[in-house]
Amino acid sequence: MGGDYAPREILAGAREALKALPDLFLYLVGTEKALADFPEHERVEKVPAPEWVEMDEAPSEALRKKPRSSIRVAFELARSGKAQAVVSAGNSGVTYACALFALGRIRGVSRPAIATVLPTLKNPAVLIDAGANVDCKPSHLLQFALMGALFSQEILGIRNPRVGLLSIGEEGGKGNFLVKRAHALLSESSLNFVGNVEGRHIYSGEAEVIVCDGFVGNICLKVSEGVAEALTVMLKREVRRDPLAILGFLLARRALSRFRHRVDWREYGGAPLLGVNGVVIIGHGRSDARAVRNALNTARRFVEIDLARRLSEALGARNHLPDLRAIS
Amino acid sequence: MGGDYAPREILAGAREALKALPDLFLYLVGTEKALADFPEHERVEKVPAPEWVEMDEAPSEALRKKPRSSIRVAFELARSGKAQAVVSAGNSGVTYACALFALGRIRGVSRPAIATVLPTLKNPAVLIDAGANVDCKPSHLLQFALMGALFSQEILGIRNPRVGLLSIGEEGGKGNFLVKRAHALLSESSLNFVGNVEGRHIYSGEAEVIVCDGFVGNICLKVSEGVAEALTVMLKREVRRDPLAILGFLLARRALSRFRHRVDWREYGGAPLLGVNGVVIIGHGRSDARAVRNALNTARRFVEIDLARRLSEALGARNHLPDLRAIS
Repeated sequence: MGGDYAPREILAGAREALKALPDLFLYLVGTEKALADFPEHERVEKVPAPEWVEMDEAPSEALRKKPRSSIRVAFELARSGKAQAVVSAGNSGVTYACALFALGRIRGVSRPAIATVLPTLKNPAVLIDAGANVDCKPSHLLQFALMGALFSQEILGIRNPRVGLLSIGEEGGKGNFLVKRAHALLSESSLNFVGNVEGRHIYSGEAEVIVCDGFVGNICLKVSEGVAEALTVMLKREVRRDPLAILGFLLARRALSRFRHRVDWREYGGAPLLGVNGVVIIGHGRSDARAVRNALNTARRFVEIDLARRLSEALGARNHLPDLRAIS
Repeated sequence: MGGDYAPREILAGAREALKALPDLFLYLVGTEKALADFPEHERVEKVPAPEWVEMDEAPSEALRKKPRSSIRVAFELARSGKAQAVVSAGNSGVTYACALFALGRIRGVSRPAIATVLPTLKNPAVLIDAGANVDCKPSHLLQFALMGALFSQEILGIRNPRVGLLSIGEEGGKGNFLVKRAHALLSESSLNFVGNVEGRHIYSGEAEVIVCDGFVGNICLKVSEGVAEALTVMLKREVRRDPLAILGFLLARRALSRFRHRVDWREYGGAPLLGVNGVVIIGHGRSDARAVRNALNTARRFVEIDLARRLSEALGARNHLPDLRAIS
């Protein structure tokens, strides 16, 4: 029921994923009406939920007033062990709250965070937190860094990933109050901390893990999308004035399409919520069928490698935990 | 002496500006060695300053330890009334501190802020604060909104500019602690406040004034640059693999060049520091000759229209001032 194009695109994505992934079993959670047209399938169980949460509802209110919303029913399936992962393109605040409530946190993590993979000129980079925690303490940023580094290592296969702290100058003294304090904590950690990273250097690939609070992280992502979209429109406007340019772009079409493919967030489909006891994928609000299919694929992969357990083991193996607890 | 390519590019930009602007008189402030090669000119006075501030120096330290730095000498010229504007591509924190110290604030402003003009799909938008104040109170954001709206109106000629608050969701309840409180203040103001604006909507032109704290604002700008730069490189890589695409881009060259021109920050040259008693233009650290020339042109224009007085009058005419003082 969640996302700007639900249920149509969500269900279309589900159909595509069922075709592409022969070992996928799907619980489709939503109103009976929304699910009515979805064809019967041996690897699908429709789970009716009479309520749903709107994109703009406050989490506290949505949780109190709608105990039978689709997102709560979905997490109930995960809590009971029936479902091994939850994918939602709906209200991310509510998804976060339900995930915390139903699955709990892994040991050593006080604030689960959303990790997003970004294309860069070098390795893919993990931006964490991409929007779960808008007001953070320095110790939370240290936790994000640990989880982001483990994700980069375990999932993206990057050895000893460089961790950068997103700030407005490269020197340690630069940034706001939160970032200056976090810089000190990260400097003392055993992470491969490369210091502050400026916004300009996210996409040039100066670090494999970019750490920031969820407010800044979410704005970074949205600004990035906005720039890419606006540039595309501006370029089209220029080209329209110029017949030679139209011909040129027709000839360059193949390269342009490979390019669009490469920088399109739909290819990643969704971002995992790291630090909860289970697999939770938060999809983009504008998810279309392709994004949903890819988010389901990501979820399946994380179940396969047992993401939460690996994060938990890796965090346990680090000797950060006592320090973390003491300062958080 | 300031900026990554000083003094070479700064002086080259000065030469270009002298040619383009026949009524411009320049004080060039720097070490004698740096200025030695600049040709004598009837509209140039070289002002020697034996010291200079590095890009990464902390403002407090730079001010205390280097009383004869080029930036302080430049502001001394402005304070004494000899120079009508200061342009610097150097350490922006130090420039900010010197401007406050030498020129003072206009009445009703407790935190001067950097305003940057961004190209959008509709009107140009003013982003304020672009980096002067990294830790803000809600009342500061209200002041930025007032100054940004006046700038949009008086300088960019936009009637009743729409003011948006940069946040991570469009609803008033979304955002961090600072933004939620600022939303309430802006809602009560007489500004044409359109509510929260997401990062994605900055460049689609949903508002003519985008309000945020200086940490977030600076990251927005740098991320925008980073995305544009990375996209360019990625596209070049794709094209290189494809002879037809190379031919295509050769044909589209004229449109591409007009496009680059349109989105290049160098065209704006620099961003004014609003709220100080005078004209101060903060250039990009990576300023080249073209950026410097354009920054000098902007400074000249602001002097001509008496920017500080107009802002001061317009702020005085608003009945916000008592409220502002009470809450700041």
